[in-house]
Amino acid sequence: MANPSPGNSITLRVEAPSSFSATSELAAAVGAAGAAITALDVSESHHETLVVDVTCNTTDDDHAARVKDALNALDGVSVRKVSDRTFLMHLGGKLDVVPKVALRNRDDLSRAYTPGVARVCLAIAEDPAMARNLTVKRNTVAVVTDGSAVLGLGNIGSAAALPVMEGKAALFKQFANVDAWPVCLDTQDTEEIIRIVKAIAPVYGGVNLEDIAAPRCFEIENRLREELDIPVFHDDQHGTAIVTLAALVNALRVVGKNLEEVRIVVSGVGAAGSAIIQLLKAQGARHIVAAGRSGAIHSGEDYTDEHRSWIAANTNEEGFAGTLHQALKGADVFIGVSAPHVIGEEQVASMAEDAIVFAMANPTPEIDPVAAARHAAVVATGRSDFPNQINNVLAFPGFFRGLLDAGASDITPEMLVAAAKAIASRVADDELNASYIIPSVFDPHVAADVASAVAAAAHAAAEARDTAAALASGAASASA
Amino acid sequence: MANPSPGNSITLRVEAPSSFSATSELAAAVGAAGAAITALDVSESHHETLVVDVTCNTTDDDHAARVKDALNALDGVSVRKVSDRTFLMHLGGKLDVVPKVALRNRDDLSRAYTPGVARVCLAIAEDPAMARNLTVKRNTVAVVTDGSAVLGLGNIGSAAALPVMEGKAALFKQFANVDAWPVCLDTQDTEEIIRIVKAIAPVYGGVNLEDIAAPRCFEIENRLREELDIPVFHDDQHGTAIVTLAALVNALRVVGKNLEEVRIVVSGVGAAGSAIIQLLKAQGARHIVAAGRSGAIHSGEDYTDEHRSWIAANTNEEGFAGTLHQALKGADVFIGVSAPHVIGEEQVASMAEDAIVFAMANPTPEIDPVAAARHAAVVATGRSDFPNQINNVLAFPGFFRGLLDAGASDITPEMLVAAAKAIASRVADDELNASYIIPSVFDPHVAADVASAVAAAAHAAAEARDTAAALASGAASASA
Repeated sequence: MANPSPGNSITLRVEAPSSFSATSELAAAVGAAGAAITALDVSESHHETLVVDVTCNTTDDDHAARVKDALNALDGVSVRKVSDRTFLMHLGGKLDVVPKVALRNRDDLSRAYTPGVARVCLAIAEDPAMARNLTVKRNTVAVVTDGSAVLGLGNIGSAAALPVMEGKAALFKQFANVDAWPVCLDTQDTEEIIRIVKAIAPVYGGVNLEDIAAPRCFEIENRLREELDIPVFHDDQHGTAIVTLAALVNALRVVGKNLEEVRIVVSGVGAAGSAIIQLLKAQGARHIVAAGRSGAIHSGEDYTDEHRSWIAANTNEEGFAGTLHQALKGADVFIGVSAPHVIGEEQVASMAEDAIVFAMANPTPEIDPVAAARHAAVVATGRSDFPNQINNVLAFPGFFRGLLDAGASDITPEMLVAAAKAIASRVADDELNASYIIPSVFDPHVAADVASAVAAAAHAAAEARDTAAALASGAASASA
Repeated sequence: MANPSPGNSITLRVEAPSSFSATSELAAAVGAAGAAITALDVSESHHETLVVDVTCNTTDDDHAARVKDALNALDGVSVRKVSDRTFLMHLGGKLDVVPKVALRNRDDLSRAYTPGVARVCLAIAEDPAMARNLTVKRNTVAVVTDGSAVLGLGNIGSAAALPVMEGKAALFKQFANVDAWPVCLDTQDTEEIIRIVKAIAPVYGGVNLEDIAAPRCFEIENRLREELDIPVFHDDQHGTAIVTLAALVNALRVVGKNLEEVRIVVSGVGAAGSAIIQLLKAQGARHIVAAGRSGAIHSGEDYTDEHRSWIAANTNEEGFAGTLHQALKGADVFIGVSAPHVIGEEQVASMAEDAIVFAMANPTPEIDPVAAARHAAVVATGRSDFPNQINNVLAFPGFFRGLLDAGASDITPEMLVAAAKAIASRVADDELNASYIIPSVFDPHVAADVASAVAAAAHAAAEARDTAAALASGAASASA
């Protein structure tokens, strides 16, 4: 699985003897060392020597060192400097905070700042709803983490999580013109995190929880949803669930099966697994077995945590009590949000005909997708170097765009389903096939489509609430 | 004092009969209603009618309504719409969060975000100091408020304070390329605020406390300075103190007096007053009397709060126990950071020859500056519509630029003095006069000058620390 990747792209500045074959020899050495060249520029040319910038993808730091050694071993060649292109991209951070208003002269200053700003402050003090018109709250989302479950790296702390949160904020802006700001909290205490997010909320129109470990993340999300008047979204759960449902809708179209009838096995009962199961059930799935490390979750056992108890009560209607491997026998769909290599080729082979395998553990999937594809009809992963990448970037930017546009204060299951359907619909009937069940993250329309679908669901929910309130008050006055 | 101000600028869209004199009649009516026209554009012209946009400065909302009425009263004239230019400027907020990196394709994505970002995270997890190179921490300041003392508006809450914090962030970027982000806290509990600022600190290279009421602000600042490894600055105190010292240095040059010898009366013993007194003393002032609402602070009385006790012990060496008015008799300098109209013309007349009056209460000064100027040699205020505006914008952007450039972790009195001197030095000898003791906030060099001065002071402090540590360890090994 260790292919050279652009995430490990380096540029080597190399001094080489000036000769007709110099650059091709360099390229050959890099290739022989297992790296993939993406650019080669002669930056200086002298009588005796050339200076060449060789850019190539490697697999990791050790590999990069081996590439350097391979070049240094060539006759008369020396590597002057190795630049890591990923680190270069992060230098100085990835976000700018930029004024939207020009401050060219005293008049500008007296309207944007004192004394004019005082009237704007008073307008909000009198009517707090005005904050959505007159401040950044209208368009701004907090990307909140405690650094306890960052990517696949585990509990690396909030300072080390910042590059991910900055990247997320950059994606929010790029894909949906949402202003997002990283909030990296130097605490991993549930109550403290809840208190802090509530305290900082005046600036934000929404909260995106990110890379917070289970089960803390459940409690934090639930409590914030109850106690805040802005929408709270745990991307690792709901973002993943949306994109998984979108992919599954299209995968089922490919194999001609129905969600209500297929047998689904979910590997992983953490944050993502629970959210996926809830959303699949909301959309009509009836036969789901979820498995953790100790096998299938079933109603014959007592679980101490709320989530396993809920899963036991709401899935596995036949009370299956075996292992993950046993559960896969005859199953139509495998959804993995767990760990590398938890299933093998023979388990995929044991599934029903036209099986669907989503192996989403990152960066190393539950099964090598190439091996899985020998037996399954549709295979998807979380990786960009295989077909069918199930990537949250398809969901969260447009989802929050829709929430902010609608001024939504809550997230409903209908919004999650609407977002999934909007993503699935970006793949037209004549485009759909086993290797293209999900649009590219660079599809220029996906965020806008998701946003409209979510905003429409939010408006429908608000109308339903208003109608219910009107009926209730009508009933109340009729009975008075 | 209620002059029409650009902070109350409105644009009236007016329909008027088409005639040679139509626009001049509109202008005359606006002028007669007491508003100052700043622009007049004919936006549509028809056979019978004109549509004219009239922009004018008013004194407040009531005045704006009277201007509208005055236009409607003209024959055949009707006002279609009144737009408030200040509110227009704040619509949708004043800040954008913008990616510094392009995300055009999968390669970009895999370096800025997953999987490449993981290596950047690990580099910070291994060496936390790398956060200053690889994240926004390098250039980003938190602008923190609890909304308890916003401008002159008092305790209007953190949501209503946001337009000020956004404006402040815009000034940080505009004047010193510092990225600043508003942190408006929905709590006014001292310990809670301290905990929250500590928890959010991983993202920031500095903290600017803003519009937090005394005495809470003192405790918060002191504790955060002790407990955080990034610099913490309370602008209402230290920003004001820096600019006041800068103005006083130049005012004393105008009248030819020495800081060590002049008798200074400070009106106001809140956050700003205390900080000004500390900085003046650090710079050599010896004769200071500070007065609060109940008269001069003196060592003959017991004060319950730390700040008044400190002032009593460190000022007023003669034990003067009278009123503010009495204290001014024969004084050389009045520094007001208190409330409107606390002194009158006769008090200024009672001061020493070539008196200096800084009446900085906002928006209404301690004395009408025109009246003060009848008796004082130099008069300054916090307002932009009189000469000598003492404005924190001269200090805080460059101050933080210097702190961030030096990677400073603490703020020293030497840095405050260095900033004040840098600001004062922007007024050259041949420019200096009683109406020009302080540069314009639009002086394009002031922020850079302040930044270099502060960074130099920070480096000097770091070197002194290193030398002291080296000497101490030398002494330790010598004695071992």
